[in-house]
Amino acid sequence: MNCLEKRILKNGIVKNANVLKVDSFLNHQIDIKLLQEMALEWQYRFKDIEINKILTIESSGIAISAIVASVFNVPLVYAKKEKSQTIEDDFYKASVFSFTHNVENNIIVKRDYLSEDDNILIIDDFLANGCALEGLIEICNQANANIKGIGIAIEKGFQDGGRKIRNIGYRLESLAIIEKMSDKEIIFRK
Amino acid sequence: MNCLEKRILKNGIVKNANVLKVDSFLNHQIDIKLLQEMALEWQYRFKDIEINKILTIESSGIAISAIVASVFNVPLVYAKKEKSQTIEDDFYKASVFSFTHNVENNIIVKRDYLSEDDNILIIDDFLANGCALEGLIEICNQANANIKGIGIAIEKGFQDGGRKIRNIGYRLESLAIIEKMSDKEIIFRK
Repeated sequence: MNCLEKRILKNGIVKNANVLKVDSFLNHQIDIKLLQEMALEWQYRFKDIEINKILTIESSGIAISAIVASVFNVPLVYAKKEKSQTIEDDFYKASVFSFTHNVENNIIVKRDYLSEDDNILIIDDFLANGCALEGLIEICNQANANIKGIGIAIEKGFQDGGRKIRNIGYRLESLAIIEKMSDKEIIFRK
Repeated sequence: MNCLEKRILKNGIVKNANVLKVDSFLNHQIDIKLLQEMALEWQYRFKDIEINKILTIESSGIAISAIVASVFNVPLVYAKKEKSQTIEDDFYKASVFSFTHNVENNIIVKRDYLSEDDNILIIDDFLANGCALEGLIEICNQANANIKGIGIAIEKGFQDGGRKIRNIGYRLESLAIIEKMSDKEIIFRK
């Protein structure tokens, strides 16, 4: 059991069949030492790939990605959420439905910051149905950037995002994959 | 001239009398090495104070603060923006007017993550009129947390936020203070 799985068992709070609150250590109050351990784990798992940029999405992916970028010694780009429908031509754009907030957002990345010369590691905190991740992949595809890997902190293995992404052929490394959870227990995938 | 001032001269874009775009290195694409140098500069300037937590506000403060928290070896808490007027009792709350988006937002921090035992360093990317910073200070005051220092990346010295905050007595360390700017030149305060 790795450091993140242990921490989820210690401080994660299961609110209902779908919601796991980790805001005491991952996305409101943030344990930077835990993030450093997670970044080192991804560095180990992705030691055979060459990347030159980390890509994530605001807001909850930013802190993790900053520490990962620091360990990989590369710049970070984060996609911004933009409710406005009028987006200038100098942005890549993808539409992402948020089940949490029941709203469709555009996510955007300025064209200057992604190109076919980029070898990307995508990082995010959660993977459930995969909508946000598909938006980031879509933006990389628009830029002809190469997605070398995807690092997720917590994958909800009982939703179908991870299966979809792996089936397309992406190399996806989730540090904690939850097989099932209830207020009684959390079971991780081996 | 420090690393941030040099970088602003090299890559900052003055859009009009009030708007400086730094999204190629500070708040959309992020140069992590620059952030590490900035964090070390704050560590030097605040070497006489003891802190146990960094506080910032989403989204553009998070990446800088994560690197600062990493250098200071303390946890990070970021205030969330919340448009909903119905906020649960377990949050500190302050109202912040955004001149950029011409909208009033609530910013919130869960009560569990700030208390009178906390010695806080507030970090943010920009200081102009000081509204966001006053919101963070208000939240610290609600929690009876001790604000030991405030670190700002870029202060617009021609707006009155910095003067107000220093007049209250806070120790404010801005890495680049812009005295005046135009599309021809950017002048920093000595």
